[in-house]
Amino acid sequence: MPSSPEDAAPAPFTADDYRARMDRAAASAADAGLAGVLVAPGPDLVHLTGYRPTAITERLTVLVIAPGRDPVLVVPTLEAPDAEKAAGAAALTLRTWTDGKDPYAVTAPLLDASGRFGVSDNAWAMHLLGLQQALPATSYVSLTEALPMLRAVKDAHELARIAAAGAAADRAYGEILKVRFAGRRETEVAADLARLLIDFGHSQVDFTVVGSGPNGADPHHEAGERTIEHGDMVVLDFGGLKHGYGSDTTRTVHVGEPTDEERRVHDLVREAQQAGFEAVRPGIACQDVDRAARKVITDAGYGAYFIHRTGHGIGVTTHEPPYMIEGEERPVVPGMCFSIEPGVYLPGRFGVRIEDIVTMTEDGTGHRFNTTPHEMALVE
Amino acid sequence: MPSSPEDAAPAPFTADDYRARMDRAAASAADAGLAGVLVAPGPDLVHLTGYRPTAITERLTVLVIAPGRDPVLVVPTLEAPDAEKAAGAAALTLRTWTDGKDPYAVTAPLLDASGRFGVSDNAWAMHLLGLQQALPATSYVSLTEALPMLRAVKDAHELARIAAAGAAADRAYGEILKVRFAGRRETEVAADLARLLIDFGHSQVDFTVVGSGPNGADPHHEAGERTIEHGDMVVLDFGGLKHGYGSDTTRTVHVGEPTDEERRVHDLVREAQQAGFEAVRPGIACQDVDRAARKVITDAGYGAYFIHRTGHGIGVTTHEPPYMIEGEERPVVPGMCFSIEPGVYLPGRFGVRIEDIVTMTEDGTGHRFNTTPHEMALVE
Repeated sequence: MPSSPEDAAPAPFTADDYRARMDRAAASAADAGLAGVLVAPGPDLVHLTGYRPTAITERLTVLVIAPGRDPVLVVPTLEAPDAEKAAGAAALTLRTWTDGKDPYAVTAPLLDASGRFGVSDNAWAMHLLGLQQALPATSYVSLTEALPMLRAVKDAHELARIAAAGAAADRAYGEILKVRFAGRRETEVAADLARLLIDFGHSQVDFTVVGSGPNGADPHHEAGERTIEHGDMVVLDFGGLKHGYGSDTTRTVHVGEPTDEERRVHDLVREAQQAGFEAVRPGIACQDVDRAARKVITDAGYGAYFIHRTGHGIGVTTHEPPYMIEGEERPVVPGMCFSIEPGVYLPGRFGVRIEDIVTMTEDGTGHRFNTTPHEMALVE
Repeated sequence: MPSSPEDAAPAPFTADDYRARMDRAAASAADAGLAGVLVAPGPDLVHLTGYRPTAITERLTVLVIAPGRDPVLVVPTLEAPDAEKAAGAAALTLRTWTDGKDPYAVTAPLLDASGRFGVSDNAWAMHLLGLQQALPATSYVSLTEALPMLRAVKDAHELARIAAAGAAADRAYGEILKVRFAGRRETEVAADLARLLIDFGHSQVDFTVVGSGPNGADPHHEAGERTIEHGDMVVLDFGGLKHGYGSDTTRTVHVGEPTDEERRVHDLVREAQQAGFEAVRPGIACQDVDRAARKVITDAGYGAYFIHRTGHGIGVTTHEPPYMIEGEERPVVPGMCFSIEPGVYLPGRFGVRIEDIVTMTEDGTGHRFNTTPHEMALVE
């Protein structure tokens, strides 16, 4: 593949970057009345330290961030050499524990024994139970509940990575329009999409939805053995990580000429996506993006067929807060990146979804990271 | 690749198989004084229902198994069509919840409000906290603590799958000995290993450790940019899933002729692995396997360099209970499958590990699923 500007690897984050993020997390914890934050392997730990264990296993790894103290990463002894290589390792202290020892006894002295802690959503229940048992007077709240915006606002370096991931996904979409759809299985087109994402610099493919005909009416259908036929509507929703940041875009294409109804539903979803995008203005809440997109679909009588929220945040994962959903009253602020992806799903028949990743710029307007046409592409 | 008998897909598990497993889980829960078991997406859910969500996300999916009641799977509405397709779906009831609703409020009525529940180790802390908040009088214990042997004993169909996975890994090892090592990066050999596992029928590659020279002394080093040199010891530890069940084997090879010390350490680890294997007899505890292997290494003065437990269970994951470690006093019983993988790690120099997957047969003796030679292979 020819290289292009967005393929250049960005400068890696430094220990100072990670130190600043951990300091910000400690300050946010203090503001929220928490004694600290317990960070599990996964996106929170990657974001705060750059450390991604080879595998997430039953062995406890936890980063303890507490206001006024230096961060400590508790790791299994045999994973310590890997942890020491993380870019953020210079900004924290390692504390190891060895197979056969009680990892909670190692962690407990790092915690205020009667404190309330924010804990990574995806921390293992087993580990939370271990800490609850070791320190019965502590209490816990998930980070999504306590500090949902911890990773939500992206800095300029992060925005550049999300832009590059979006551009790569757009190039993949441009190429997939050239492949044959009719007569091939969904899984074959999905494999094409995955290969294109990798070709355009993704290190990881998270999903390649190819929902043809009735399968498109199941928003979480990934790709199956169904053979795509002439006359099918096909939902293509794909994304992954490039340089550690996510892409996620959806277009709905058609094999051959669509019916009037197919075109009408597709136009409706386009209009809804545009309305969600135009709702991005200073002072709006996350739910306002959902309301704007949903209103278009509801007003047209298809409200019962839009069966999911309008969007989700994106960053070191392809799926994170903030969520664009009724009831999410927190404000959209500059630097947030999120999907706007309304859809209409007609059971047993077809589905349409159109999705861009959008950020709010410093001046409070929306900016799209996916810029391929929303018009229904006709494929062969 | 030429096909071979072990490549034939086994008959899929049926709803009756899954019903029997769920019944057994309910009975085990009752025996352990639990009001039920809460099963999260991941290996427990795959084992009990055959359902593997496309992605494990923040949206609550939980299987509730309670003695004397029919099992209920709580799923997000938009994932229900996928869940309905799972082989075990006919043996349970689905209960859906829609974005914007409180999933814990949907789950709470399924639980005894003052019961004690076993919960999947890897359930998200966020979901456990949600249930603890919705039902403050409930209490929880991890499945590894409460019912560690829930998935440990494999039936004949499962043993056949683990045997097939082991045979495929062995074939991959046979092929990797033919590739060039000297002058290539670890990641290149790792990619060869991954390709071979797929060629021999794996659907998923979980790890391909290539630890050359000093990198071999880090047991969790995966594969890096280091160029393998003539004279290197190289640890090869690889595995994944074939037909849904795991493989995991390690051999340590040498590029060119080894030194006397390298040969001595390699012989020692072979002897330790054999001792662990021979310890598999009726009436032994898991820790006895560790003790037998460790004694060989400790007696030779290398005890400080064997820095991990001797083994772990394997099944629908490549890493699960039972653990072969000091303090694990539960008995080894027929049908358990686990690794025996002693190692010696000399920091900054080299490492040696030898690993087979072993089961205890009905007559109480050990049986290896990896049968490639333990002798140090010399590669180019």
